Amino acid sequence: MSDQTLNSWEARADANSFYGFTDLPTIKERGTTVLTHGKGAYVYDVHGREFLDANSGLWNMVAGFDHPGLIAAAKAQYDRFPGYHAFFGRMSDQTVMLSEKLVEVSPFARGKVFYTNSGSEANDTMVKMLWFLGGAEGKPQRRKILTRTNGYHGVTAVSASMTGKPYNSVFGLPLDGFIHLSCPHYWRFGKDGETETQFTARMAAELEETILREGADTIAGFFAEPVMGAGGVIPPSAGYFQAVQPILKKYGIPLIADEVITGFGRTGATWGCQTYDFIPDAIISSKNLTAGFFPMGAVILGPELTDRLQAAADAIEEFPHGFTASGHPVGCAIALKAIDVVMNEGLAENVRTLTPLFEEGLKRLSEKKNIGEWRGKGLMGALEAVADKDTKRPFDGSLSVSERIANACTDQGLICRPLGQAVVLCPPFIFTPSDMDKMFDRLEKALDGVFAEVA
Amino acid sequence: MSDQTLNSWEARADANSFYGFTDLPTIKERGTTVLTHGKGAYVYDVHGREFLDANSGLWNMVAGFDHPGLIAAAKAQYDRFPGYHAFFGRMSDQTVMLSEKLVEVSPFARGKVFYTNSGSEANDTMVKMLWFLGGAEGKPQRRKILTRTNGYHGVTAVSASMTGKPYNSVFGLPLDGFIHLSCPHYWRFGKDGETETQFTARMAAELEETILREGADTIAGFFAEPVMGAGGVIPPSAGYFQAVQPILKKYGIPLIADEVITGFGRTGATWGCQTYDFIPDAIISSKNLTAGFFPMGAVILGPELTDRLQAAADAIEEFPHGFTASGHPVGCAIALKAIDVVMNEGLAENVRTLTPLFEEGLKRLSEKKNIGEWRGKGLMGALEAVADKDTKRPFDGSLSVSERIANACTDQGLICRPLGQAVVLCPPFIFTPSDMDKMFDRLEKALDGVFAEVA
Repeated sequence: MSDQTLNSWEARADANSFYGFTDLPTIKERGTTVLTHGKGAYVYDVHGREFLDANSGLWNMVAGFDHPGLIAAAKAQYDRFPGYHAFFGRMSDQTVMLSEKLVEVSPFARGKVFYTNSGSEANDTMVKMLWFLGGAEGKPQRRKILTRTNGYHGVTAVSASMTGKPYNSVFGLPLDGFIHLSCPHYWRFGKDGETETQFTARMAAELEETILREGADTIAGFFAEPVMGAGGVIPPSAGYFQAVQPILKKYGIPLIADEVITGFGRTGATWGCQTYDFIPDAIISSKNLTAGFFPMGAVILGPELTDRLQAAADAIEEFPHGFTASGHPVGCAIALKAIDVVMNEGLAENVRTLTPLFEEGLKRLSEKKNIGEWRGKGLMGALEAVADKDTKRPFDGSLSVSERIANACTDQGLICRPLGQAVVLCPPFIFTPSDMDKMFDRLEKALDGVFAEVA
Repeated sequence: MSDQTLNSWEARADANSFYGFTDLPTIKERGTTVLTHGKGAYVYDVHGREFLDANSGLWNMVAGFDHPGLIAAAKAQYDRFPGYHAFFGRMSDQTVMLSEKLVEVSPFARGKVFYTNSGSEANDTMVKMLWFLGGAEGKPQRRKILTRTNGYHGVTAVSASMTGKPYNSVFGLPLDGFIHLSCPHYWRFGKDGETETQFTARMAAELEETILREGADTIAGFFAEPVMGAGGVIPPSAGYFQAVQPILKKYGIPLIADEVITGFGRTGATWGCQTYDFIPDAIISSKNLTAGFFPMGAVILGPELTDRLQAAADAIEEFPHGFTASGHPVGCAIALKAIDVVMNEGLAENVRTLTPLFEEGLKRLSEKKNIGEWRGKGLMGALEAVADKDTKRPFDGSLSVSERIANACTDQGLICRPLGQAVVLCPPFIFTPSDMDKMFDRLEKALDGVFAEVA
């Protein structure tokens, strides 16, 4: 099918790339898709093929692939000041303005910002901050990190240790002291006869039992995505955060909201924690922060962690941590524009407008006999494929069902993401109702084709 | 001195920034320096003050702060395709072209590239690759990482564990299994009567003893900067890499060259390993890779690691690792241009031309009674302050000598970097002989002032 002759784009990609998060048999069979440009929610490859990207790049290109305002902001800053750092008491004016803006739009009355280049680095940084705090406050044993099975927090060795996905075992991860609690996915993990309220209570009880078993004084923090993203779009069971937060408070354990995916509009509010009505102790941001136009992550500390960390840093006269491109002026200028575009130019509004249409489409497809569940919040959704709808039995792994669905979508000119046996959809915020129709039509054709083969 | 009234830039920076790698007493006393733009090797703050940046930003802005070709390359790519990822068998054309170029300019006959957003992430990724390889090759116990005291490899929890600097103890780092060998700095660590040849032999013997003590089968890799950078610009003792490489080969331990600072021209050759005449098993690149115009890191695997890692990935059909912005099209377009600018537009040549002038200036200042040593390679150099030149005794830590020197330089309109008790200089590759004179004149004034106070 693909041109893999010498000097083809596919052969050149293969020759020099060590592929990550890529199904290698698919590459061998179909070749790499080499993309050249985009227009709105569509991307185009070297052969002129068009794809509707229902994946927003990687959740992040929420303003599409050619947003004129963001392009103009990037270009203006390259003309003005194309690079600097934020060490040694120097930083760019853009960095100062973005920090001010991030605190302003955060759920915190006040706070402080630390920049990184990715969500992975931001989670890794937050862990180092919590370890630093433990040492400074005379509790050096306060090092364990609580996260959840299917939670995704990144790929540095520490953020991968936080990630509750089985594939990390190939690296000998998680490292010691990273504890994965149960995944609050009621449909999949609820017991026979257990109500959702009982399920949530069980999740909370497990948290408290874990704290008591490990010792509250050994736990540095609890990290959670308001809606699990790369775990397969898993909204928490009803009342989950209201049940766990009081327990964390009781034992003095900070609650860190990993809003890398949910932040800046994805769930319908600015922050996922607003959608689920809780205020965390710090927020991890990335992706939408720059609408994918620049690598950037940020730790936004709430008031209490700000004060405690600042006191700890003041005591030793320096917080010895930072990345070369932390607070890069171009990234900050782009983020300032991206926040404005999402919050004030109708994108966040469009998420809320499109959500009913999105849910309706997911519901409709979930009626198929090989879809066990639809789930989602705002413009993030998933359809879970099952071999048997009643027993929720998944397909045999050897059938590679989700890879087949993703490839069948590609053939239809649609990009969506296989995750486990789910198909994940997270369209850009510039989607139109017509894009939405096109997405579901193409997806339905792909699903029907694959289910006819495997079911 | 600085305007720290409400709504001043300084106050706004303070209110919302959690500062990293920043001397906090200096901020309290002098306020943050908020920069707006740059011109050549000079940067300008909100008050119109001009600074000659002899630090190249953070080693990385080697083409200066307004390079027209780099700005044009960034802007053209924002117009063309402002963002994509490299997962799931898709990537941009720029990504394909950059990987091809990186292998071409590497010291390897062939190889493969993996992208990250920083040097920290690239080192962290390389460690994960080595752990992955151990597991895949039936040696899951092969996890220990060897680095050197004063080596700097980044700030993620794992790359900070590799970094041999005492400040990481505030995070409870290094993690277990990160072993720091001695720093091959002959002037500082050579014993009485020991020749440099004997010193190098002692370094090599320590490596072999460590391997035998720990067990060769427990060691995943040895990482080294060809010239230590953030440890204080420390070139290896004579013959160091020729002495250690055969030992590593004997025990089957990969040698990874961390070329984040030395890569792309800093030492006079494209790679530091070429300057020191050895071929590593993989190269870690960042900083100069994009001339600081974009956050990017890369792991460049040599032939043997390429084959072994590819076999390991093929066996499980996927290498489950990658960052959202890995291989970002704008970063790749900028890197393609930066490599061209450094290698083909006279910048690398200028490093070689300026080096004698640079060394002459360092030598001249090293004659002062409170400078113990000058050292360097290419356009990276350091002057080590000492209280007593004969005994090499450092100043009392409470005198904060290097912070005083850096602040005195700032007052002279010169940015250079205090590191321990050394002053580090790493001018951009676009420096002119007149910039060089200005740099040494201003530095001399600063040194004379501070030494008059403290000596």
